[in-house]
Amino acid sequence: MQNFTYHNPVKIVFGKGSIAELPKLIPDDTEVLMLYGGGSIKRNGVYDQVARAMQGRRLVEFGGIEPNPRYETCMKAVELAQAEGINFLLAVGGGSVLDGTKFIAAAALYQGTDPWDMVAKRAGVSAGALPIGCVLTLPATGSEANGNAVITREGTKEKLALFSKSLFPRFSILDPEATFTLPPRQTANGIVDAFVHTTEQYLTYPVNSPLQDRQAEAVLLTLLEEAPKIMADPRNYEAQANLMWCATQALNGLIGCGVPQDWATHMIGHELTALYGIDHAQSLAVVLPGMLRHQKSRKRAKLLQYAERIWGPCDGDEDARIERAIEKTEQFFHSLGVGTRFPDYQIPAEAVELVASRLAARDIALGEHRDLEEKEVKEILALQK
Amino acid sequence: MQNFTYHNPVKIVFGKGSIAELPKLIPDDTEVLMLYGGGSIKRNGVYDQVARAMQGRRLVEFGGIEPNPRYETCMKAVELAQAEGINFLLAVGGGSVLDGTKFIAAAALYQGTDPWDMVAKRAGVSAGALPIGCVLTLPATGSEANGNAVITREGTKEKLALFSKSLFPRFSILDPEATFTLPPRQTANGIVDAFVHTTEQYLTYPVNSPLQDRQAEAVLLTLLEEAPKIMADPRNYEAQANLMWCATQALNGLIGCGVPQDWATHMIGHELTALYGIDHAQSLAVVLPGMLRHQKSRKRAKLLQYAERIWGPCDGDEDARIERAIEKTEQFFHSLGVGTRFPDYQIPAEAVELVASRLAARDIALGEHRDLEEKEVKEILALQK
Repeated sequence: MQNFTYHNPVKIVFGKGSIAELPKLIPDDTEVLMLYGGGSIKRNGVYDQVARAMQGRRLVEFGGIEPNPRYETCMKAVELAQAEGINFLLAVGGGSVLDGTKFIAAAALYQGTDPWDMVAKRAGVSAGALPIGCVLTLPATGSEANGNAVITREGTKEKLALFSKSLFPRFSILDPEATFTLPPRQTANGIVDAFVHTTEQYLTYPVNSPLQDRQAEAVLLTLLEEAPKIMADPRNYEAQANLMWCATQALNGLIGCGVPQDWATHMIGHELTALYGIDHAQSLAVVLPGMLRHQKSRKRAKLLQYAERIWGPCDGDEDARIERAIEKTEQFFHSLGVGTRFPDYQIPAEAVELVASRLAARDIALGEHRDLEEKEVKEILALQK
Repeated sequence: MQNFTYHNPVKIVFGKGSIAELPKLIPDDTEVLMLYGGGSIKRNGVYDQVARAMQGRRLVEFGGIEPNPRYETCMKAVELAQAEGINFLLAVGGGSVLDGTKFIAAAALYQGTDPWDMVAKRAGVSAGALPIGCVLTLPATGSEANGNAVITREGTKEKLALFSKSLFPRFSILDPEATFTLPPRQTANGIVDAFVHTTEQYLTYPVNSPLQDRQAEAVLLTLLEEAPKIMADPRNYEAQANLMWCATQALNGLIGCGVPQDWATHMIGHELTALYGIDHAQSLAVVLPGMLRHQKSRKRAKLLQYAERIWGPCDGDEDARIERAIEKTEQFFHSLGVGTRFPDYQIPAEAVELVASRLAARDIALGEHRDLEEKEVKEILALQK
């Protein structure tokens, strides 16, 4: 096991009816800006539950944070927050609303000229951030329990990541009932997202970390078990609760303690989303199979463990067992209605070259060995076109 | 899954050489009291590592916190802390040193007449506690990552528990090398302790919590895998690191999220330790087999899952499979040199009556159904005498 530091101070309040706990979680002496997305919370009752819980408190609102939250939108919220003397942000929504809120929280206190520099020039969150609370409506990104945010700039078609310990939410309310009315595509995306967050930390190379491996397998096995139940009946409370807790555990830092991490699938996927507008989870499903096949020699030991412990023992030589595990993974994504090839999303073949050169220009070391370059990215994507 | 709140703000700094991080973790403007046990840290180099890391800082010392830390000893440390104007406690040791330090931290700020009332009259930690940091030398109790403390009063032979969120350490340094010179008995005890912490949260009744179940199994399977390696070679860094991380994960609250919990084995075990001075882990090994056999109908579903997933599939009817799993558990404890019967520790047969009546007098509801009474405690212990 490698040395590590783990510190996750987020208070998780989980379960049916937990939105009613809001007034105990938000400090009395704060001016609160509530942020949300396209308005689904007004249709599914979550907005009303928040309003009821916060009765008697002033609540400034900012709606319209889009999937893959945009810098341009976030900056409007920053203006509103400053004009209204806001000092607490309440994100009500999924990972995009949360990520947008995190960027807003940091941008509101940013000391430089342009808050975009926090991600583009990797200036980071040097001046801290407004405190954030969260009511989660979509299990997927794990953003409710980490200090990560991914933000997109429409003008330059860039999708870039930010991390700071000051971006951990103070609390996150996870009420599985808030997920009952999600469209199947969003639910499926969330399952794929949590699955790939786990493989990014699990499918690398062995460092003698059996506990972390078993904890990662715990998430994967539970996702496989619960996904069909949820797709068949989105009002299955128990299954939704299990998915919601899986998504949090997949990216709260725990399974990544002391192990190498990959994240190349995410980095490549971000480019596909930025260029072609496909959903984040779709981009992961498109990249992962090619990544695993291309890297099967270097990820061999972990892929064999994955094949055996997630998909069950089977005959055949090592290559055959690995190939079967990758096929099963693809079939799982397909069973959720999530395609794994360029044509499934009308991504043109030239994306192979374009994504690879954009990543090369950004000069980011990719993969758990930090050595995937333009050539390898092209080869990986070529397997999926 | 049941509703739950999870909030664990402890910063874990894990790995070889991590004691050198101390100066970054303890605030500069604090007066530090360093607490330790019988002096093993002076023989194994940990004391020197702490002293080196803290060079240039005043460090008041209090040694001699014993296993099953005593109220009487702790109160001497409280006096010292008050006389020296201490406002930060650094526990360097295992669970006993940590538990003692937690009691001291709370007692130093206690407003009532006698801090013992915090546990005996369940007055709790109403006035807060001094901040605590930890350098862990023994993987076992999980005290490095929770707000629990168990304290013993020599005069009345009582062993009682305290919990407060103000008792979470601010940080815990976990350097597996600090465990290399532990006596085999302490290592074995630590393994049993972590194992039983897990079963207390895992072997109850099903509430549809597959992720928590898999996470608990992750701890149990890793303990089974690493234990023989450590017993054969205590300087096996990787195995010690895996054990250390298991012990933390067994009682940092995670595997208990949203599931019923038992803890009757602990409550009964505490009485055996208070009365007969046996080690904490020994008391758990003595109680657990009787508990599982006595409660096998009510714990049936979980015991069957335990039998299958921890000890492997086997033939036979349900009762036979459960009995085999309990026997395997006993054999595992025996393989570590930890006995599971009264005669192994010269516990007299009258302990059956005595422990049951002492617990009855304390009027605590036992077990995951909160309904084990004097009669059941007697029946459980009678199986082990």
